[in-house]
Amino acid sequence: MKDFDDIHAMMTDLGSRARRAATELGFADPEQKSEALRLAAEAVLARKSEILEANAKDLDYGRDKGLSPAMMDRLALDSDRIDGIVSGLRAIAAQKDPVGETITEWDRPSGLHIKRVRTPLGVIGVIYESRPNVTADAGALCLKSGNAVILRGGSESLHSAAALHSCLVAGLEGAGLPGDAIQLVPTRSREAVSELLRMTEFVDVIVPRGGKGLVGLVQREARVPVFAHLEGICHIYADGDADLDKARKVIVNAKTRRTGICGAAECLLVDRALYETHGAPFIEDLIAAGVEVRATGDLLQIEGTVPASEEDFGKEFLDSIIAARIVEGVEEAIAHIRTYGSDHTDCILTENDATAEMFFTRLDSAILMRNASTQFADGGEFGMGAEIGIATGKLHARGPVGAEQLTSFKYIVTGDGTVRA
Amino acid sequence: MKDFDDIHAMMTDLGSRARRAATELGFADPEQKSEALRLAAEAVLARKSEILEANAKDLDYGRDKGLSPAMMDRLALDSDRIDGIVSGLRAIAAQKDPVGETITEWDRPSGLHIKRVRTPLGVIGVIYESRPNVTADAGALCLKSGNAVILRGGSESLHSAAALHSCLVAGLEGAGLPGDAIQLVPTRSREAVSELLRMTEFVDVIVPRGGKGLVGLVQREARVPVFAHLEGICHIYADGDADLDKARKVIVNAKTRRTGICGAAECLLVDRALYETHGAPFIEDLIAAGVEVRATGDLLQIEGTVPASEEDFGKEFLDSIIAARIVEGVEEAIAHIRTYGSDHTDCILTENDATAEMFFTRLDSAILMRNASTQFADGGEFGMGAEIGIATGKLHARGPVGAEQLTSFKYIVTGDGTVRA
Repeated sequence: MKDFDDIHAMMTDLGSRARRAATELGFADPEQKSEALRLAAEAVLARKSEILEANAKDLDYGRDKGLSPAMMDRLALDSDRIDGIVSGLRAIAAQKDPVGETITEWDRPSGLHIKRVRTPLGVIGVIYESRPNVTADAGALCLKSGNAVILRGGSESLHSAAALHSCLVAGLEGAGLPGDAIQLVPTRSREAVSELLRMTEFVDVIVPRGGKGLVGLVQREARVPVFAHLEGICHIYADGDADLDKARKVIVNAKTRRTGICGAAECLLVDRALYETHGAPFIEDLIAAGVEVRATGDLLQIEGTVPASEEDFGKEFLDSIIAARIVEGVEEAIAHIRTYGSDHTDCILTENDATAEMFFTRLDSAILMRNASTQFADGGEFGMGAEIGIATGKLHARGPVGAEQLTSFKYIVTGDGTVRA
Repeated sequence: MKDFDDIHAMMTDLGSRARRAATELGFADPEQKSEALRLAAEAVLARKSEILEANAKDLDYGRDKGLSPAMMDRLALDSDRIDGIVSGLRAIAAQKDPVGETITEWDRPSGLHIKRVRTPLGVIGVIYESRPNVTADAGALCLKSGNAVILRGGSESLHSAAALHSCLVAGLEGAGLPGDAIQLVPTRSREAVSELLRMTEFVDVIVPRGGKGLVGLVQREARVPVFAHLEGICHIYADGDADLDKARKVIVNAKTRRTGICGAAECLLVDRALYETHGAPFIEDLIAAGVEVRATGDLLQIEGTVPASEEDFGKEFLDSIIAARIVEGVEEAIAHIRTYGSDHTDCILTENDATAEMFFTRLDSAILMRNASTQFADGGEFGMGAEIGIATGKLHARGPVGAEQLTSFKYIVTGDGTVRA
């Protein structure tokens, strides 16, 4: 691993090469981009043992650093996970190419024909944590959408990311595309992240994928526009008009199917009207499923609940824990979610259309659900293909960020010697 | 006019009031918003003499400050211009309300129904220069799109802006909407602009409308996301395969119809092939129309042209001046526009589809035209209604920024006790 004395010069070089590659990539043949991704998938398969060796170095480093078992698990690759990366690359290769697509078109009385067509954003900086597969997914999605990308993975995953990155470059070059279209920051230096966040000349948008620490750093330092990806502090509100069977199914699934994903439910709000007529059997279900239910007020009367502290509300546990409280109807639920939510995914359980409508209208999360598990907050489940994350900001991209969301548009206007009066 | 000792406290107060108003405005009844705009239009009509008195104060201030005649003209109101503001407000009142509109919807095999619906951005900060009508236009468009807005006009137009702003507030309050939905920064202090650019807690996006000075300030200081509005350095490339009659009509219109708007052509590129077969009669047309043609190379042989300096390329004249040079075909034209353009509006004159396609594909300006005057770069001409400006950035909004571009979206997902496998 090389050391870099001058991080600024190194990053400027990366940035200017990305900018050049982006210009070429912007009008690359769709088939050539798909070919690059298929070749990259082949390279990953062919170099499986190299990749596992690189990952072993990262695991040693992580062990020395004292990473938690959950983090070690996220960092670890095995043959199956590498196969997953290969199918991910192939799936993106097979997806529709968004660049050049006509979004809408119309004629004007002046005689002009106007088309709005998709165009790449340019250069994307992706900053992520330790899951090595993000290197392949993010690189592939940016390529599909005609963007050059600068990847900056977690310091623990540097060797694995480098091994996967070299497969992506092999794919690009095999397909006759510039290898600089997908670059990886080749150092663990934190300074490189700060540089990336400030390279307004070379980078068009930053996509941060990670926890509070990363998001805070990005918010403080970024001068490049950011697609905000906050935590998933997903709420479920069980309304007085909820169907109890549906509520029990949805709540248990939303919390327990996988606890470590951003779409996992972290807080349960129970309408007093429901509690008084039906109790809260879903809380008993959660406890039976091994979930620690941190409750307040009357809910503490349910056997097995433990007292919640104020900090348990608005917290992303990513674990088998849920906060729970009673609210006095949908308006209080909305107020609670506005205060403690993160604009990711929030769900109402109700059979009452008017109540659902109020929930949908007065909340402004990226994803609002009714009678469905928050664990559906996922690009694949939305039918949007692979995604780089779930954006919680309101500008440009929101919800699952797939290839389409990584594009902008331009207007193509055709006349016939048409002049303005 | 009040003086503010503590600009930070004053702006924080403005910001928090805007944020509260935005929450309410996000689900306001469309008819109520239209009513507010109609009432505002009535108020402007009824208070015409007050507005003209306020404008007279601004004109005195501008005269003392030694503003140029062009700037004085931009600042001045008269009865006709006020009538124009009234019809502008009425037109926006009659436009379609974008909030809540379903952009697209689909079903999933899981049983989920997914809808993408428009939602307001939140709080918009608009920073503009001396045209008083922008106060009304920008305020009205932000209201239409369900956003609260903080307006900061040019210091010369403070009294006119305040008079128009009070009409907007009267409209809001008459329709039962919060008056804080449209606020005006009530001081000339520059510090207030710096505050506005940094209020990430209260402001979701900044729309700057103005020249190089403003754009530079915004780029240096903004921490809030910005819809970039660069200058309109519009190019016209007359290709070897241009139809000479169309070329003559379009070039003269693009330069001379109005020279002071951002869609006015500022640079003419002539293909050598065209020049050798047909000369450049459009340059003679321009000179006959009183345009100063600043040329290089062979074009200087045309009587009446004057030598261009290097700085004339990439310059927004906003005047009866155009830069002109010969290029060796479309690729050199593209390279020139990439180097000197501002990604606003660029036009090719050609009858050759393949050449036009290359121009459209390899350039990435917000608006690309073929055989049509660049002066069509306008929201009204695009059929998009009133606009707040022509965005040249690639994130979120691009080209004419109307009410629709001032919205974001959210996903509304409906299931029936649907859980993820």
